[in-house]
Amino acid sequence: MAITGRGNAEIVCTGSELLSGRLNLYVPLFHERLAPLGFRITREQSSGDTLDGIRDALSSAMKRADLVLACGGLGPTFDDLTRQAAAAALGRRLVYSKGCERILSYNYGLKKLPPNFRNQCLLVEGAKPLENTAGTAFGQVLTRGRRMLVLLPGPRREWEPMFPNFLDEEIASFFRFRPARLVKLHAAGLWETQAEKLLRPVMARFPGLDFTILAGPGTVDFHVSGDDSGGDVSRAEKACRKALGSALYGSGEETPASAAGGLLLAAGRTLACAESCTGGLASKLITDIPGSSAWFLGGCVAYSNKAKTELLGVKRSTLSRHGAVSSECAAEMAAGARRRFGADYAFSVTGIAGPDGGSPGKPVGLVHFGLAWPRGCRTFRKQYRGDRGVIRAFSANFILDELRKIIK
Amino acid sequence: MAITGRGNAEIVCTGSELLSGRLNLYVPLFHERLAPLGFRITREQSSGDTLDGIRDALSSAMKRADLVLACGGLGPTFDDLTRQAAAAALGRRLVYSKGCERILSYNYGLKKLPPNFRNQCLLVEGAKPLENTAGTAFGQVLTRGRRMLVLLPGPRREWEPMFPNFLDEEIASFFRFRPARLVKLHAAGLWETQAEKLLRPVMARFPGLDFTILAGPGTVDFHVSGDDSGGDVSRAEKACRKALGSALYGSGEETPASAAGGLLLAAGRTLACAESCTGGLASKLITDIPGSSAWFLGGCVAYSNKAKTELLGVKRSTLSRHGAVSSECAAEMAAGARRRFGADYAFSVTGIAGPDGGSPGKPVGLVHFGLAWPRGCRTFRKQYRGDRGVIRAFSANFILDELRKIIK
Repeated sequence: MAITGRGNAEIVCTGSELLSGRLNLYVPLFHERLAPLGFRITREQSSGDTLDGIRDALSSAMKRADLVLACGGLGPTFDDLTRQAAAAALGRRLVYSKGCERILSYNYGLKKLPPNFRNQCLLVEGAKPLENTAGTAFGQVLTRGRRMLVLLPGPRREWEPMFPNFLDEEIASFFRFRPARLVKLHAAGLWETQAEKLLRPVMARFPGLDFTILAGPGTVDFHVSGDDSGGDVSRAEKACRKALGSALYGSGEETPASAAGGLLLAAGRTLACAESCTGGLASKLITDIPGSSAWFLGGCVAYSNKAKTELLGVKRSTLSRHGAVSSECAAEMAAGARRRFGADYAFSVTGIAGPDGGSPGKPVGLVHFGLAWPRGCRTFRKQYRGDRGVIRAFSANFILDELRKIIK
Repeated sequence: MAITGRGNAEIVCTGSELLSGRLNLYVPLFHERLAPLGFRITREQSSGDTLDGIRDALSSAMKRADLVLACGGLGPTFDDLTRQAAAAALGRRLVYSKGCERILSYNYGLKKLPPNFRNQCLLVEGAKPLENTAGTAFGQVLTRGRRMLVLLPGPRREWEPMFPNFLDEEIASFFRFRPARLVKLHAAGLWETQAEKLLRPVMARFPGLDFTILAGPGTVDFHVSGDDSGGDVSRAEKACRKALGSALYGSGEETPASAAGGLLLAAGRTLACAESCTGGLASKLITDIPGSSAWFLGGCVAYSNKAKTELLGVKRSTLSRHGAVSSECAAEMAAGARRRFGADYAFSVTGIAGPDGGSPGKPVGLVHFGLAWPRGCRTFRKQYRGDRGVIRAFSANFILDELRKIIK
């Protein structure tokens, strides 16, 4: 989905590792930082650690964008070249900052700075330094005409605090955009195209806002952002919530697991689970949530048939008659996990994640689920397409979302 | 780590979603495709779905790199603009290909192509089409002088088969580089700086090869690539293996879990586990591996104390005297999992993943581990720094690697 915004921002990431095996995890994080400031990101570049490459990336970005964020290459070693590249791109010198020296001396309790610390005191002429609460590299805010270039250190724990500490205000006051609002809504149990169809009328009603649809495994995330001074974002959010109906499971940083967990916590109820083909993934998604121990008692990864019978109490006759991948087995697994852990709710997953193990009657991607709760139980059957990872991810999100609906 | 290579490649990814919330997962995959062909990636750009943006990204990349791969934007809808952008960047026309029409007609059993299929038959003048085994968008190979531009469809399942089917040969024959070899070695239980120190002499001995070091949670990956016609890559690999010693757990696509699993499979032994703070993550990493059911019987996510005593047989007195986060509890959890699942080997993890739950005596990041096997048992204690996700990931990799060493 295309998005529109009021300011254009470009990201320049530096580091040869980003071009030889390391995932770039930062662009979505910068999106979340910049959207509320009224910017859309129009381009991202990753450059290796060469002076020419970084300078060229910065120069070209500065020609196009209002705001350029450069991340990485501010360390004290030979392959940290972003300072020099920025100076070259702007045609400015590097100057030694006594103020930075005082801050580092104070923070690290040093009377005299060693050479690698002194390197960190070099600023591009005219830069405002941004203090680093987790390292020695200062961020740098540079302006030229109506454009801004911000240099940020590479590690997330170093650059992330710079936004609330100082940078958000710096950007807001320089560009004087109205503060914008980013709302993230999350739905499950429908396809991206279905979500788009439900949301299209809302998007048409609010042409001044930015919309993004992102499909995940069994989930659809929907971002709305823009100027909320007239209440447009709030109205659009309300309309989206209505359009998505019961498919909407949460907003902000919520996940299918945290949405179900929030309901359990509020109700004072507990959860257990029994996993076969997801093999611990559902438990992992649950225990990703800080504080989940308040409502999650535990789970069984019952990969072998013996574990299914002995730990979960699945009947041998069920396995011999219907097989481990059956609604009968799923129902007994869920009931067994509920009993075994003494939980109010329990779910189960048993299926064929592949690539092997499929048969004409039970192909790869066939997954059975069980849900057991104080006053009932239910089973589900799904046939997924995709590789092992896809089947497992869809399965875990599916049952966590069905759990949410049952608790509700 | 900087790398050197013989050809320079740039990647251009298109899609506004890459700039508004979606991770770009493809750059490491392209690295793995291009390194064996003798290319290093020198820059990656992600552009939104605008004709100007994509054209500009392609034009600038074509000025710098020998080979440009553009990925995405080849669909039949209005925001699929890469074809037009490539034509504009090269100053060429789009031409309708009767050959592509025949292939689509045949593949989809259609006498007359609907309009969106006809769009897919538009090639940039002079392009060689690459057949798509999973969709309607053709890849396109374009050359200008000594440079090559390749247009690839966005979905991985569509572009990935194009390399072995045709594209690898096309690139190799155009550039006539010697085929290169990419070796990936994986180590655990040491820091990136330690690995670098061990490997520095090897890197110095083979200045003609490319080396990359990538740090993961408790792991270090090491890539060696280059011309192996004289046996240099093989010799460097051997030297790296020797330098890394027992820290080396595998190569290629191996993970700590698959390395341990390979040894179990070869020995005809089985595994179970008991997880508290990792909450299913270790089981998930194990069951990510196709065929793991041959040696993994299952696991217990024993989040509550009751689960630890009732499912794993941890003594109440152990919990009251030493607490759940203790070597005593870890030892009983491992022994209990081994007994409960009837496994040859079992491991356990119990710790404080945070952000809450820490105390002066047992701070966040403290993790105890247990290992039980036919002729012994062992416990480990680690103090990690970082957030919940980091502590969990380090913990899981640590114990899976200790398991490997014990089996060995």
